[in-house]
Amino acid sequence: MKKFLNAIDTLLEESLSGFAKAHADIVQFHQQPHFITRTNPTRAGKVALISGGGSGHEPLHTGFVGLGMLDAACPGQVFTSPTPDQMLAAAQAVENGGGVLFIVKNYAGDVMNFEIAAEMLDCANATVLVADDVSLPKNHSTGRRGVAGTLLVEKIVGAAAEQGADLATCKALGDKVNANTASMGLALTSCTVPALGKPTFILAEDEIEMGVGIHGEHGRQTQKLSNANTMVEQLIHAIVEDLQPEKNQQILLHINGFGATPAMELYLVYEIAAQLLQQQGLNIARSLVGNYTTSLDMAGCSITVTLMDDELLALWDAPVHTASLRWHC
Amino acid sequence: MKKFLNAIDTLLEESLSGFAKAHADIVQFHQQPHFITRTNPTRAGKVALISGGGSGHEPLHTGFVGLGMLDAACPGQVFTSPTPDQMLAAAQAVENGGGVLFIVKNYAGDVMNFEIAAEMLDCANATVLVADDVSLPKNHSTGRRGVAGTLLVEKIVGAAAEQGADLATCKALGDKVNANTASMGLALTSCTVPALGKPTFILAEDEIEMGVGIHGEHGRQTQKLSNANTMVEQLIHAIVEDLQPEKNQQILLHINGFGATPAMELYLVYEIAAQLLQQQGLNIARSLVGNYTTSLDMAGCSITVTLMDDELLALWDAPVHTASLRWHC
Repeated sequence: MKKFLNAIDTLLEESLSGFAKAHADIVQFHQQPHFITRTNPTRAGKVALISGGGSGHEPLHTGFVGLGMLDAACPGQVFTSPTPDQMLAAAQAVENGGGVLFIVKNYAGDVMNFEIAAEMLDCANATVLVADDVSLPKNHSTGRRGVAGTLLVEKIVGAAAEQGADLATCKALGDKVNANTASMGLALTSCTVPALGKPTFILAEDEIEMGVGIHGEHGRQTQKLSNANTMVEQLIHAIVEDLQPEKNQQILLHINGFGATPAMELYLVYEIAAQLLQQQGLNIARSLVGNYTTSLDMAGCSITVTLMDDELLALWDAPVHTASLRWHC
Repeated sequence: MKKFLNAIDTLLEESLSGFAKAHADIVQFHQQPHFITRTNPTRAGKVALISGGGSGHEPLHTGFVGLGMLDAACPGQVFTSPTPDQMLAAAQAVENGGGVLFIVKNYAGDVMNFEIAAEMLDCANATVLVADDVSLPKNHSTGRRGVAGTLLVEKIVGAAAEQGADLATCKALGDKVNANTASMGLALTSCTVPALGKPTFILAEDEIEMGVGIHGEHGRQTQKLSNANTMVEQLIHAIVEDLQPEKNQQILLHINGFGATPAMELYLVYEIAAQLLQQQGLNIARSLVGNYTTSLDMAGCSITVTLMDDELLALWDAPVHTASLRWHC
């Protein structure tokens, strides 16, 4: 394993400390338990948005704390759920009279721990469960996994909360974005979790994992590497089949790198995906390309499509000022 | 080789086309010859800033075209200089009465081709040569290589040009930023150039390349992998030895990922580097962490330090609106 590392036990804390120092104008790092909050106070009565999950997906979620997006993020160890005490402490730190909305990716550990925190919390709260990964069927026993579409929920609900939407409105909006969003990814290589010290799974030199999860979970199938057109077509086909968009539907197209894929390749994927979607009569109203929901050093990418309407477009375009998304600020 | 790829011959064009579509509000893609310009016209009399170089370092340079930074970028094939006809066509497209400033990384092919273009160009022009890589001695026969410090030159001179600085002022400012900047990187792994189809160089599982260039060039030495503290200390030592900063000097600290290094590790490197620099009495006034000057899918990072003064800080903070750097916009 070749990584920048002093010790497994100190990696998360050292990294969070560096993150908070590099962006001291935007975020603050709280220790024991670990969580990240905004540096600047929010308006009284604003709904507080909190997300979190295992580390290793950066910039998700810490890089999305700031004006117009999250109020706090709770990072667990790599690919490991944060604990309820982190969520509780974060909620107590940022609750400001408007209640707390938890944005939770659908993984058993995350769901359980956020539920415990919600029960312990003595203020109004609600949870949006993100489950955008269409590599699993809709009726899968544990539900679909939450992947790169989480960013869309955090950005759009974050904008609404900033503009004064109440807790019930934010919750309904988050559910709407989740329902409007479909993602699927593929891995060219595995990632290596520091504590494990070796690749999570093995792919031959001519194999890819189609429908991979953001922790390297098995997807639809292990298959032969093919050209970019063929691989992107498979992703787009699965997404469109799931969303069943109308002709002329406005969409947001998000190409997400898993960590080790060069920008040149991500933009090639964008080019192919955009052509396929336009051939189906869809209208790409907004685009986002880059490493946003990563899987450490995995090579590969996911494609996310969100069905947009005027409300969602306006909220997407609203000001955001975080370490990793920043516009109109 | 596992990459998103249709064909080697079409990769660059497909990727540039996707890039321009994803950021159609900011950039335009011109074909035959290839170059990228801003979508929105600039003020008459503004100095036009043009950079370029081999592709594979994205977002450098295409991702830095836009308000407050470059007017045009000329991308060559992967790790291959663009040709003079690209630079000439770009210059003719964006020259707007204020002359042209070429920002060129110090590599023989780039230098030669930009010189030919400058000679063919029938308007006032000047060139800033970037040579910030301190892994080579100052008196090296071909000079030092231009690496991640190029971003600093493009951002700071870009802001000055936007504010109305003339060609001579922009040229002098670019030379000043270059003189104030020192960078050094290390590779944990090689990158794989698509046309070659295999890693550029070979490192054993316990080896790193200290002082590597952004194309995988040999650096100071191949050495054993050590912990993050030790490796970062070596980079910082070389940089500080070169810059010889005064106590309390204001600096910008830039941690640049080479493409396959997770954000967690880049922020760990930031944490260590920041502590070392502060221990030497330096004042970290600005920070930038992320993948900005990449080497395709290489794992590793570089550290860049620029000595800042009030003029440079104000220009760094000035509005910028490009695909990959965006603030106060």
